[in-house]
This record gives sequence, structure tokens and C-alpha cells, in this order.
Amino acid sequence: AGQLFLIAGPCVIESEAHVRKMADAIQRITSDLGVPYIFKASYDKANRTSVKSFRGPGLVEGARILGALARETGLPVLTDVHEPGHCDVVAEAVDVLQIPAFLCRQTDLLVAAGKTGRAVNIKKGQFVAPWDMRYPVEKTKSTGNERVFLTERGASFGYNTLVVDYRSLPVMREYAPVVFDGTHSVQQPSVAGGVSGGQPEFIPLLARAAVAAGVDGLFLEVHDDPANAKSDGANALDLKRLKPLLETLLAIHAAVPQPA
Amino acid sequence: AGQLFLIAGPCVIESEAHVRKMADAIQRITSDLGVPYIFKASYDKANRTSVKSFRGPGLVEGARILGALARETGLPVLTDVHEPGHCDVVAEAVDVLQIPAFLCRQTDLLVAAGKTGRAVNIKKGQFVAPWDMRYPVEKTKSTGNERVFLTERGASFGYNTLVVDYRSLPVMREYAPVVFDGTHSVQQPSVAGGVSGGQPEFIPLLARAAVAAGVDGLFLEVHDDPANAKSDGANALDLKRLKPLLETLLAIHAAVPQPA
Amino acid sequence: AGQLFLIAGPCVIESEAHVRKMADAIQRITSDLGVPYIFKASYDKANRTSVKSFRGPGLVEGARILGALARETGLPVLTDVHEPGHCDVVAEAVDVLQIPAFLCRQTDLLVAAGKTGRAVNIKKGQFVAPWDMRYPVEKTKSTGNERVFLTERGASFGYNTLVVDYRSLPVMREYAPVVFDGTHSVQQPSVAGGVSGGQPEFIPLLARAAVAAGVDGLFLEVHDDPANAKSDGANALDLKRLKPLLETLLAIHAAVPQPA
Amino acid sequence: AGQLFLIAGPCVIESEAHVRKMADAIQRITSDLGVPYIFKASYDKANRTSVKSFRGPGLVEGARILGALARETGLPVLTDVHEPGHCDVVAEAVDVLQIPAFLCRQTDLLVAAGKTGRAVNIKKGQFVAPWDMRYPVEKTKSTGNERVFLTERGASFGYNTLVVDYRSLPVMREYAPVVFDGTHSVQQPSVAGGVSGGQPEFIPLLARAAVAAGVDGLFLEVHDDPANAKSDGANALDLKRLKPLLETLLAIHAAVPQPA
Repeated sequence: AGQLFLIAGPCVIESEAHVRKMADAIQRITSDLGVPYIFKASYDKANRTSVKSFRGPGLVEGARILGALARETGLPVLTDVHEPGHCDVVAEAVDVLQIPAFLCRQTDLLVAAGKTGRAVNIKKGQFVAPWDMRYPVEKTKSTGNERVFLTERGASFGYNTLVVDYRSLPVMREYAPVVFDGTHSVQQPSVAGGVSGGQPEFIPLLARAAVAAGVDGLFLEVHDDPANAKSDGANALDLKRLKPLLETLLAIHAAVPQPA
Repeated sequence: AGQLFLIAGPCVIESEAHVRKMADAIQRITSDLGVPYIFKASYDKANRTSVKSFRGPGLVEGARILGALARETGLPVLTDVHEPGHCDVVAEAVDVLQIPAFLCRQTDLLVAAGKTGRAVNIKKGQFVAPWDMRYPVEKTKSTGNERVFLTERGASFGYNTLVVDYRSLPVMREYAPVVFDGTHSVQQPSVAGGVSGGQPEFIPLLARAAVAAGVDGLFLEVHDDPANAKSDGANALDLKRLKPLLETLLAIHAAVPQPA
Repeated sequence: AGQLFLIAGPCVIESEAHVRKMADAIQRITSDLGVPYIFKASYDKANRTSVKSFRGPGLVEGARILGALARETGLPVLTDVHEPGHCDVVAEAVDVLQIPAFLCRQTDLLVAAGKTGRAVNIKKGQFVAPWDMRYPVEKTKSTGNERVFLTERGASFGYNTLVVDYRSLPVMREYAPVVFDGTHSVQQPSVAGGVSGGQPEFIPLLARAAVAAGVDGLFLEVHDDPANAKSDGANALDLKRLKPLLETLLAIHAAVPQPA
Repeated sequence: AGQLFLIAGPCVIESEAHVRKMADAIQRITSDLGVPYIFKASYDKANRTSVKSFRGPGLVEGARILGALARETGLPVLTDVHEPGHCDVVAEAVDVLQIPAFLCRQTDLLVAAGKTGRAVNIKKGQFVAPWDMRYPVEKTKSTGNERVFLTERGASFGYNTLVVDYRSLPVMREYAPVVFDGTHSVQQPSVAGGVSGGQPEFIPLLARAAVAAGVDGLFLEVHDDPANAKSDGANALDLKRLKPLLETLLAIHAAVPQPA
């Protein structure tokens, strides 16, 4: 109904300097366009296809970097958690805890995230029907925390392919505000010999469709040099393409009757 | 890149008076909005789930009704063909021959339709990958007829369910102009005890997403009384909802950079 | 509950000599093993991916060849039909009319096949739920012809891939005797640049699983030189592998309590 | 190639007396039939659909009960782990650590399980292609532990439905011995208003097909009173049906040429 917000940043914390550079660049764009902005980066890629892939700085150093970023930029920050025991540490540093799609049914993790009182963004599992996302919301809200979001990021469609069913957006908005993840929705799990592939050429198309269908926010992994990103470069949006994409999305959002 | 066009009408010819009434009502709306309009109705529903369902007036009477409609309204008219031997009869009456999705790989039908010289709209099979629709286009164009369109209407997703993969639109636009069928894309094949069900509440959402993704035309089955339609009422758009939907679609179309 | 039967032969009639050679070779094997055998070949591949592919000798010549084969070998013969108008011609030559999977909902074709009084084998569409195959059976039996079979050949699973859901076998056996097509179930539609691919290495596995699950008959496209077959060689069983496969299948069939 | 083994038991530890009763009953059957047997029960159902569902006795009490059962019956015991930190506690009590399907890509969990030196059974995620299960195997074996198994339990097929692709069995046997889970493969995730449903009538069919296709072991959740089971009763095999099913499976196994 209201303003579109943006969750964006690099897939993983590559260095303290890099997250700061990305946050500054994106903040400049969103500020120009009047789009509320939440910075995103992961401190640990806990489910990379291969055991040899880069995972990030880890919990303690990651929380330090993200906490410093939040203080210095004033931006709200989001990161994902993978174990119940990590939630408290992360919650001291950031504003939004994100539950990875594969873990969206893990009761202890949802409850631990909810108990921190921080906002919780639950990604929809690739194997979960949209109407069943009410249960992760209920698990999280069972802690008394009402600040829960859901994120669409594609559903399993045969092997190594995801498809976005846009009917999921209004279905899930019955339970919580809904974010559309335009970058992971183009992921091709594990296609490239132990590394997930992507179709970044479809990011703008899928994001436009989501805004036309009706969403509360967009989630985009953005990188200033996707070809050399340390994780998921194959489905990151090039920073250079962010501003024109957001301009189009805002124009579409204005064209859609609200509530969508 | 240019103007959006609309293919619309009732699923089946219920009577000569009814098709005229629907054509007039839709023409009034599209004329007000400056949208090029092609009337659509079937003379024979050749693949109804049940053998007992209403099928329409048949080839000869249907061709007569549609031919008269075309002459009297000046509208281009589209109808679907099911056998190679019917193409010539139909081509004398209408401007566009449509190939049903289940039949999109039947070489003889595609070639017979192509040979008439009329425009040919090929619906993508629920079982066909978007990149494989180049072959039906090639079959049809092998006759020297270059006026071929492709229509997206959803892909099989488990049982009794379709999902629209919007990546198909730019993929298929490599081969031909692309139409999005907003009503069959919400069909639930055979769910209701020998009758296909639908989710008409999602028609506007799916159509908005398609226009935001980028298409050349929209296909909508429209009925003035969906609850009493003689075929596929479960996924028809109520005539009352057509004008506001088209207004939104035109606004979205204007917001999307062209070529999309 | 009873004996397993076999429907087998080359995908398409390559020549009169070749169908005779294949029929003789397969008959020798099935006769040794006591397996009732129905010869299969198509006279026209009406839905090849590419318009340039070999299609066969056509209706008239094909019917002549199959009719002669039936008379000379004494074998029952099966072939597939694609238009209602062809059913009578085909029915004079062969014992079983087969409805292709893409056409399994075409009412006129089912009714025309049923009216011939010949047995009718309906392949399940890749886009049809097993429980919905009751409707094609009803359409065919509406002619008074009770000799109807159903054949499982895989369901759409993402793009360019089929998966066999073995639960379909008992579901469909509620409506008619069920055949398992072990060769098309490994088809990879259109994967190879305008030609469908296959995974013939999985034919024995899928056939064993089907017999263990419980079926009435097996359907196998068999070729004495798959690499040079004129159609669908990519998913044909090499003739040399037929006898050991049937021996295993009979042993599994004997191990399964009947009715399965 | 060799003997079929069985992993079986109730979904969750309902009580110390109940696991003992089930272990004794199943051991009697497998001992009669000469089938190597591993007892299975969970101490914590960490991803129940609803937050209100019964979860089990928890880590400490569960490990005590399973450890006692192992000592007293002499049976190898398997249970599933959900957090890296739990692996050591569990490894003191049981012989096989199982990685749940949703967690099959969580690197830390796989590595922690591998490091215990216990055998590790990794269930294939519903969202993972069979050929991508080589990566979880590599992650686990990166610890030097070579005792890794893979278990097939169905793939996402549309919403709220799983399908078993039996081609996955030989594909995964390239990486590790393969178990077929005949009970979760019939699960219908979340269908029943916050509780997963099932189709236990298909368990024997799917298990027979798996043995005919070729597997190393079977996994079956077995209960003496499925209607009153505290978890997943909807897809448990009734204890009364276990012996005749195993007899059939052994007969099929004997009929399949080895290596399958």
C-alpha cells in the first residue's frame, strides 16, 4: 500500500572497506529516489554448494563489521542467521535477522530469532507452498515479536531451476509484509560444477513483474564487480544498473492501484 | 516496443446474439482507450475434460457466425482450429487462426494454418520449454507465412496446477511477437470433478506482471456473466473488470522502458 | 494379476523389410519366454520437434505395410492415429489404435478411435494427472467400446525433463489396464537442438520399477541399430538387450504378490 | 550388490518403553528374514509444520534413551541431528548420525557429523538434483570419514507433493551407498492444516520399485498404531505390514541382476 523499500548489498562481507563502499553507493541512489533502504550482507555462507568455497569473515568478526557499519552510516542492517545460538550475537549488531530459505521450517531458529525482538525476514523455502508460510510466521510470532516479513525467492521447478509463482505474493501478504528477492529468484542451483549459476539478465524483468503484481519491498544482491564477487556473482545485479532499475520500479509502483 | 493489443471475447460461441453483445461491449472499451482489439471466440471446444460438456456450434455454423461478426463490426476475429482439414473453412471467416496449446507440436496443423496466409497464434504447450517454441514457429513459417504469434499460458507444475514463468516472454520474443493469456494461465486443469477450475482473482495480477515484464499483446477470456458461462467460466474475467484492468495495464506499459 | 504382455517395435516404419525383420526378431524372443506380444510401429510421426525430420511412409502406405505384417506374422499390431478421419483406415489394418499423449484430451479422436471397435491404447499426457485419465477412458467408452488401455510415459518436471510417478499405475488401473512405456519415459523433449534426447541407460531400471510397482503390460521401442534409427533412436532399447531385460522383468513379476 | 539392509523405527521417541517395544518387534522380523537392521527414532522433530506439535524428549534425554537401547538390544541405532553442537553428544549414544533433508547443504552440520567418526546418512533435499548430492558427500568426507550414505526421499513436484525419480538411485550410488526412504517419499507436506499428510497405501509400491531399481537399503518409519502416532503417523507403515513387505522386497532383490 505504501512506499516500496529496498534491501540490498553484496552477497557476503568481502571486507570492511567493501561493505562500506557498497553501502555508501547504494545509499546515495536510494536517497536520491526517496526509497527507504536496508543494507544487506552475510557474514557466513553456511550452505555453499562446495566445501571449498569462500564463506565470509564468520560470526564474531562479521557482527563487528556490520555493527560498525550501522553506527557509522545510520542505515538499518540485515544479515542472515543459521543457528539458534547465533541470534543473540547478531541481534546486538543488526536490525533485521534473516532466516535462509532452506531453514524456514527450523522451529528453534525461528523462535530464537523472534525472541531477540529484532525484525525477522523469513525467506520462503524452495520446497514450500506459499500458503504454508503462515506456519513459520506463527512460530516466530509465538515469541510475541510481531515484526515479521516474508520473502519470495522462487520455487523448485524440475532440477537446478527455480520459477517464481507471483500468486505467492498476495497469498503471503495475508500473513506478513512481503519482499521479492530479484536475485536469488534467478539462481540456478549448482548448475556450474559445484557453483550455483544465475541469469542476471532476468533480474530487471522479474523485479518489474513483482512490483506490478504488488509487493512491499525488493531484495537485490548488488555488486560493483559481479564477475569478481566472492559469492553468488552469477546472480548479482551490477551496481551500475541499480538506479535505472529502481526508477522503472517506482514508476510501475505508481501505476498499480493500491492496495495491490 | 509499440502499442499493446488485446485479444478478448468469450471462451465459446454461446449464441450469435451473445458474441455480438460481447464484441460490442469490449470494442467500446478498447476504442475509448485506444487499444487495438481482436475479437476471440471458439466454435468448438475439442478437448473439454468431460465428453458431456458443451462444445459450441461446430465448424460450419461457427464460421458463419464469426464471419458475419467480422463483416458487421469491422473487427479482426480470432478462433482456434483443431484439424488440418478445418483450416481453409475457418480462414475464409476469420483473420487469425489459433493453435491450441496441446496441439502446438502437430506439424500438419501448423503447416495447414500457415498455408492459409492468415495470421497464426500458437499457444505454448504446458509441456514445452519456451526456447522450444522456435520449432512450431519454424514449422508455420516453412509455408512462407511470416505472420506468426506465440502465446504464453502457463507451464505444468505438479498436478492440476500451472505456473507462469515470465522469463518465457523475452525468450519467445526472439522468435515472434508474444501474447500473454491471463485467463488460461490461472486454469486448474480438471480440478473440479471433470471440469477445469480457475483462480480468476489472480487474472489482474498475472496480467500486470506480464505487461511489466514486457509483452506485445494480452489475451483475456471475458464474459458478462462468468458464473453462467457455458465453458471455462471459472477462469473468465468479468466484463465489468475489463476497463479498469486495461487502464492499469496501459499505465504500467508506459512505465516500462521500450524495448522491454 | 495375470501375465505381463509386451508392446514393442521400432518407433517408425523405416521400410517394409525393417518392420518384418524387427517383428520376427522380437516374436522369437517373446515366444521363447511365453510373453504375449503386440507389434508396434508408427506410419507418421506427426509431432516431430523439427519440420525437417523424417516422418514415415504416411497413412495409406503405412496401413498397407502394417496390414500385410499382421496377416503374414499372425501378430496383433498397434499403431498411433492423429486425426479422427484416419481411424477407419487404420482400423482395417491393425488391432490396436493408440492415442498419442499430446492428443489424449481430443474428444473427437478418442470417439472416432472408440467407434472402430478396435482396442484403444491412450497414452497419458505429460500434463495430465493420473486421476484425470478417467475422462479420456470415459470418452472412448462412450462409444460402447470397452477395450481401452492406458499407458504411463512420464510427467512434465521442469523443462525438457520427464519424471515417472509410479503412484500413477494403481491410480489409473482403477479405470483400465495399464501399460508402462519404458522408452518414452526417459525422453528429454527437444534437448538436442531440435531433436529430442533420451537416457536409454535408464530403460531397464524404469521398466523393473514399473513391474515391481504393478502393471499389465510393457511398451518398449526396440531397434536393432539405435544409433541409426530414423526417429527417437536416443530413447530406443537395443534389440540385443531385450531378452535379458524381459527375463528379469518376468522374475520380478513373479515375486510381486498379485493383484499388485 | 549385496544384502539389503533396513533402517526402521518410529518417527519420534514417544517413550523409552515404546522404542524398546518397537525395536524388539522389528528385530524379531528382520532376524527371521536375515536382514541387517538399524533402529531409527528421532529425539527432536525440529521442523514440524506447526509450533504446537509434539517434538520429542529432546537431546539429552533422547541420547540417554537411544544409548540404553543400543546397549541392551545390541542393535546399531540411527538418529537425526539438527545443529553442529549436538553431534558429539549424539555420537556417544548412537552409531549413525542422520542429516535431515532440509539441512543437507549446511556445511557446518555435515562437517561436525563427519568429524564424530560415526556413519553419516544424508537425506537428499527435496530441492536438490541427484547429481548435486556429491557435494554433501564431499563436505562430509572432507573430515576423513568415509562412512557416508545417501537417502532418497522424494523431490518437490508442484506444491505439497513429492515425486520419486528412481533415476536418482544409480546417479547417487556413484557417490555413496543409497537408501530409499519409503515413508517420507509419500509425504504430502503440510496438506492437512498445519500437519503433513501422507499416502501410506503407496509405501509398499514405492519400496518395491526402489528395490527393483536397485538400492542398498530401505528406510521405513514403522509404528504399531499409526493412527495414534505422535508424529508423522500419516505416512508410517503399520508394523503388521512389515514382514510381508520385507518378504516381497527380498524376492524382488533376488530377481534383480547384481550389480543393479
